[in-house]
Amino acid sequence: MTNNIQDYSHKRFNILTGEWVLVSPHRAKRPWQGQNEEVANEQRPSHDESCYLCAGNTRANGEINPDYTDVFVFTNDFAALQKDSETFTVNEGLLQAQSEQGVCKVICFSPDHSKSLANMSVPDINKVVKTWQNEYKTLGAMDMIKYVQIFENKGAIMGCSNPHPHGQIWSQSTLPNEASKKDTQQLTYYNTNKSTLLSDYLKQEFEIKERIIYENDAFVILVPFWAIWPFETMIVPKIAQESILEMTDKETELFADAISVITKVYDKLFNISFPYSSGIHQAPTNDTDHSHWHWHMSFYPPLLRSATVKKFMVGYEMFGSPQRDITPEWAATTLKNLV
Amino acid sequence: MTNNIQDYSHKRFNILTGEWVLVSPHRAKRPWQGQNEEVANEQRPSHDESCYLCAGNTRANGEINPDYTDVFVFTNDFAALQKDSETFTVNEGLLQAQSEQGVCKVICFSPDHSKSLANMSVPDINKVVKTWQNEYKTLGAMDMIKYVQIFENKGAIMGCSNPHPHGQIWSQSTLPNEASKKDTQQLTYYNTNKSTLLSDYLKQEFEIKERIIYENDAFVILVPFWAIWPFETMIVPKIAQESILEMTDKETELFADAISVITKVYDKLFNISFPYSSGIHQAPTNDTDHSHWHWHMSFYPPLLRSATVKKFMVGYEMFGSPQRDITPEWAATTLKNLV
Ligand SMILES: O=P(O)(O)O[C@H]1O[C@H](CO)[C@@H](O)[C@H](O)[C@H]1O
Ligand SMILES: O=P(O)(O)O[C@H]1O[C@H](CO)[C@@H](O)[C@H](O)[C@H]1O
Repeated sequence: MTNNIQDYSHKRFNILTGEWVLVSPHRAKRPWQGQNEEVANEQRPSHDESCYLCAGNTRANGEINPDYTDVFVFTNDFAALQKDSETFTVNEGLLQAQSEQGVCKVICFSPDHSKSLANMSVPDINKVVKTWQNEYKTLGAMDMIKYVQIFENKGAIMGCSNPHPHGQIWSQSTLPNEASKKDTQQLTYYNTNKSTLLSDYLKQEFEIKERIIYENDAFVILVPFWAIWPFETMIVPKIAQESILEMTDKETELFADAISVITKVYDKLFNISFPYSSGIHQAPTNDTDHSHWHWHMSFYPPLLRSATVKKFMVGYEMFGSPQRDITPEWAATTLKNLV
Repeated sequence: MTNNIQDYSHKRFNILTGEWVLVSPHRAKRPWQGQNEEVANEQRPSHDESCYLCAGNTRANGEINPDYTDVFVFTNDFAALQKDSETFTVNEGLLQAQSEQGVCKVICFSPDHSKSLANMSVPDINKVVKTWQNEYKTLGAMDMIKYVQIFENKGAIMGCSNPHPHGQIWSQSTLPNEASKKDTQQLTYYNTNKSTLLSDYLKQEFEIKERIIYENDAFVILVPFWAIWPFETMIVPKIAQESILEMTDKETELFADAISVITKVYDKLFNISFPYSSGIHQAPTNDTDHSHWHWHMSFYPPLLRSATVKKFMVGYEMFGSPQRDITPEWAATTLKNLV
């Protein structure tokens, strides 16, 4: 491949969304005079009396958490989606709206307040994966639910309001924008090529190798060619699967292993508990055929150069397109050296 | 219109981008236990020796700013786009990239370090508007430039690295994602209806009135029906214009008046110098016909409930779709009361 992409401004195509990212490799040396983030690296206790996610404590709505010992799931006390609200449509000229029902859940990864995925054991992460499977299956089986979004906001900088290790699951009656774009792009490709977009993409990445960080028997961790966030990565099953339900017991362990590897690498990068939002994109739970889906988990970490300097997705990024300074290849090499 | 949209979770369609926003009106009362932003409300001097944007001072690259007295434009010392880089294409299977040339400029709105658009006079804002016109024209006339993005990042929370009143202009050889979506949506509508999408939208808004904050003879300020950010607003010319070049002298004054009104209102909302990213979407500068374009300026402010609590666009928003708590109608009423 031409070396130009390490030196000159260019845009790269995201095959999964059909959108572009602007890359400015030459800009990495820009001095930073703007806002610095706080580093919150205090040691946390294993149990915090004031934490509404710890076992046995009382939540905002008065409910008391059970004395859970591994993973604990409950319905979000301030859910963004309602289950039993009226169904309605606004169709007045150019004003278009539509009710959206759904179920939002919180999933505590561990009773231990001091943990994060990065310092949980692989068997313990595996319990989280099994819970994700179970939730995807149960929620997806509800008539009303056509799509299940599993995600985690980690760190105060990512809007996470409680450091207790936890993620969320928002399930809803239609496909949100990002899932819908990926659905379209993967379907178009599959119809023409009879293989999934990501299988063919992985083939190319395995030949080139420069963006691969880690692999085990079932999964690969890489920085996608079109990564937006400075240290964005993706965990992809080597063989196409529509959803996390297709994983065998051996494979959920290998997935847990991959999660363990990447979160540990992240923590080593700037020597802090590394903030990110992560999420799993997988087949919708509607009745259509999903052979074109190849599920994957992405990590979008906001930090750019250090524990305190983040990448701001602001002005140009909001009005134009995402923009990045360091190249995905440089990021991949940096992360790979920390495995 | 049904009152349901003030009470129940629903999604609204953005006619300009073709995407959806999830609205959760019932969620506005969620308590906040997460990160608080710092309020930087110190008085700034009119001239700051250490500011690289103040008149007469030296910039990072050693250049000395002139003793400018109103608006001052220069090429960004750390431009994300390069003008004279090689042209190249990566077309290797699923790896698709393309060089992107461009010119990035910085525009100081005033020599007075202590100012912001909110406390500049309308004639002084008018000088900024005239400069935008001039830059759009000059940059757009370059062979290489097909699109000009004018924007401002205001406040440290918006990644702005210097409080000196300034904005930026990034011009480039292809349309970025957001402009491209708006181009498509407006073109489709115009081809069918022979009027611009925003003219017909404004007609509806003028009938309903509940989202309009302010109007003068040429412009209206409103919270769009599909607003993503809690207090997002839009300044739209009442009669369709493709670009800011079509404004008469009288109209640039009226546009300056609208900018003055909305920025003052914003400062009053939480009693701080209000952070936001703003940007102008207008016709590309390529050779195609642009009759379908109706330019507009949008403000995307990050704050949600107070000077210190912002809306985080994280997990669900990154993987699903944008999500908001307070309704656009509630936001419009709040802002209108501050005019
Ligand atoms: O150019 P600046 O002000 O240094 O940088 C700021 O605006 C740019 C354009 O929106 C962004 O790419 C940067 O992340 C942000 O920090
Ligand atoms: O639900 P939480 O953790 O209180 O809230 C966090 O995650 C949500 C889902 O990404 C976002 O909508 C909120 O802005 C963010 O603060």
